[in-house]
Amino acid sequence: MVLVKISEKMHMKRIERVRSTLQAKNLKGMIFFNTRSIFYLTGFHHIPTERPIALVLPTDGELGLFVPELEVNQVKDTVPLVTDVFSYFEYPDEIHPMKHFANGLKERGLVDKELAADAPGAPGYWGYQGPNLMDVLPKVKLSILNELIMDMRVIKDEEEIALIYESCKWGNLAHQLLQEYTYTGASEIEVVNEVNAEASRIMMKTLGPTFKPLSGAICASAGYRGQIGAGSAIPHATTGNNFFKNGDTLVTGAGSNVGGYKSELERTMFMGEPNEKQIKYFNIMYKAQTAAIEAFGPKVKNADVDRAARKVFKDEGVWDLVEHHTGHAIGLEGHERPFLDIGSKVIMKPGMVFTVEPGIYVHNFAGFRHSDTILITEEGYEMMTYYPRDLESLIIYQ
Amino acid sequence: MVLVKISEKMHMKRIERVRSTLQAKNLKGMIFFNTRSIFYLTGFHHIPTERPIALVLPTDGELGLFVPELEVNQVKDTVPLVTDVFSYFEYPDEIHPMKHFANGLKERGLVDKELAADAPGAPGYWGYQGPNLMDVLPKVKLSILNELIMDMRVIKDEEEIALIYESCKWGNLAHQLLQEYTYTGASEIEVVNEVNAEASRIMMKTLGPTFKPLSGAICASAGYRGQIGAGSAIPHATTGNNFFKNGDTLVTGAGSNVGGYKSELERTMFMGEPNEKQIKYFNIMYKAQTAAIEAFGPKVKNADVDRAARKVFKDEGVWDLVEHHTGHAIGLEGHERPFLDIGSKVIMKPGMVFTVEPGIYVHNFAGFRHSDTILITEEGYEMMTYYPRDLESLIIYQ
Repeated sequence: MVLVKISEKMHMKRIERVRSTLQAKNLKGMIFFNTRSIFYLTGFHHIPTERPIALVLPTDGELGLFVPELEVNQVKDTVPLVTDVFSYFEYPDEIHPMKHFANGLKERGLVDKELAADAPGAPGYWGYQGPNLMDVLPKVKLSILNELIMDMRVIKDEEEIALIYESCKWGNLAHQLLQEYTYTGASEIEVVNEVNAEASRIMMKTLGPTFKPLSGAICASAGYRGQIGAGSAIPHATTGNNFFKNGDTLVTGAGSNVGGYKSELERTMFMGEPNEKQIKYFNIMYKAQTAAIEAFGPKVKNADVDRAARKVFKDEGVWDLVEHHTGHAIGLEGHERPFLDIGSKVIMKPGMVFTVEPGIYVHNFAGFRHSDTILITEEGYEMMTYYPRDLESLIIYQ
Repeated sequence: MVLVKISEKMHMKRIERVRSTLQAKNLKGMIFFNTRSIFYLTGFHHIPTERPIALVLPTDGELGLFVPELEVNQVKDTVPLVTDVFSYFEYPDEIHPMKHFANGLKERGLVDKELAADAPGAPGYWGYQGPNLMDVLPKVKLSILNELIMDMRVIKDEEEIALIYESCKWGNLAHQLLQEYTYTGASEIEVVNEVNAEASRIMMKTLGPTFKPLSGAICASAGYRGQIGAGSAIPHATTGNNFFKNGDTLVTGAGSNVGGYKSELERTMFMGEPNEKQIKYFNIMYKAQTAAIEAFGPKVKNADVDRAARKVFKDEGVWDLVEHHTGHAIGLEGHERPFLDIGSKVIMKPGMVFTVEPGIYVHNFAGFRHSDTILITEEGYEMMTYYPRDLESLIIYQ
């Protein structure tokens, strides 16, 4: 069966890794407020709101999940790993949820102990206000280990890699539809919504009922995000009331969410035959991306991949058109550390997954950027995305 | 012309209000890291990433916006209020952006001064790590005013109210399409994507090129978020690979984003003629929502609106089926404080905007919740959403 989510076995393995760290530090348990970390450890997917939630992970003992009343049945129905669900009615209510949480920890024998937490308190979100853990549990000796889970997430395990590969597939389909459905005179918004609806429909039908979408009704997507014509010269442009014209340079973005994992595929495309200026910049960008791709591998410095792309841009005399570094890690989030940046101290290891996306931007004219997703392996690297990169494949003829 | 974004004049007014507060506290300026607060004050819309951005608001003097290189042209092109744009190349880079920021503040004569900030440093987002302001500017005397903008946002001004009214309109259209496009055997994902594409298409064509979508290609939306049949009994269910069946209870959600402002419209609907049990719970929910609505008004305690709904549920003997309070404020965010909750100490004032959404949930059977958006006025309240609330209007006949 195709893997569409992280298995319970892998969640257990992650939890055991956290426990080993806690044991080594003589800590009795750890409290997680970060909803992405809770998802990483247990698979619990929910809509974060102002209502705090917390995972209690004792070094020895049962996992506990502290949630508002409206999440209780969802945890019981969907998170088999968590058997101890404790709850509060609402936030703010007459008694603050953090006081209920403190009582819950007392009942579980977890006060007067050395504990860790990923943050001093619940994150301030959607109007939440509240005391920190130390305010409600002054006797606990608390260590803040805010980077523990992010550090684990840097090296992807075999299931994460499988999910990212699966994500690349549906990003590829969405991108193919995007190229097919885009035509002169069409509206950005109409094309993108049509593509996303169709790609999501096919993805759902293909993967079937075991696949649970975690990003709403749009499971796979591709679009332009306003990067159309002169808009493509703004790397972080946003969607607008745009229409495609002959001669436009387009910068795309495509991906899908499989079990929480993402991939990134971006291409520079042209509405009709590109002119000399478009071809010139496309070729420089292509050369820089190729140089960066060829620089990847285990034991390579992240900074050196960024240097490889920079060297091409400098040699070609377009360094003044560069507005960002070469890429970033990707997984549960669209951007993750470490970065492909001259300032990075990181050395690549097998299991790391990066985007590779050097770009150049000519203001009021056009931008040029491809992005691919790349896996570091024992032997070198593997391209996870596989959409054609060459210019000829990326022209939209009418 | 229809108002589709906050005017420059209103942004100036907001900035002047912040300056008055700073003056009263003898502070020389304030630094904002929160991207929503920066949007509230200047209208600068962007995609937040790991790269820190900061607004510098001197008590006397020019507004400054500190951004990564890839945002510079976007600020210059779209934020006329900000004339002093200063930037850094990238994060992490060889020199940390916060050091560049400290230098920028020095050049602007803002060190050795008493300043405020909305947070001790840039938010940790997408793998960002960095020093706090005090680490890079040890001579500054810094006050943290983390609630200043949220406090201002509680009372909506006339432009905010106009944008929320406009948002209700397009949410209403999307909901109407949702009711029309839903049929027995259809897939949740397919219906929702079709509705969103069509509602967004009509909204864009109606509002025209002055309307800038701020939520991607989906400008107006309506859906079920997994609240179909037994799924409707989970208040925060999420979208699934679901198909509509005759007899299903459905809970919907609809809205749109107009200039950053949201509204909320939710309805309980039925696939075919509801049975006695469905009608019974629907009527109790309807009665509770009506009681809550009638309790709204200036000088009313938020807690009393929650009590009005609670009283109906208790009198009807279904208190055990309640999983959340009666509502929350809404505006730039889908949920904002203050809340309609027995624990709230807030007294209602004209200009506050709330959702009103008491609900009941019968596990493994169905959930029952309407949500409307309500404005507090000098005289009482106004319903901003206007989709029919009565049972007969909410039956989907095949």
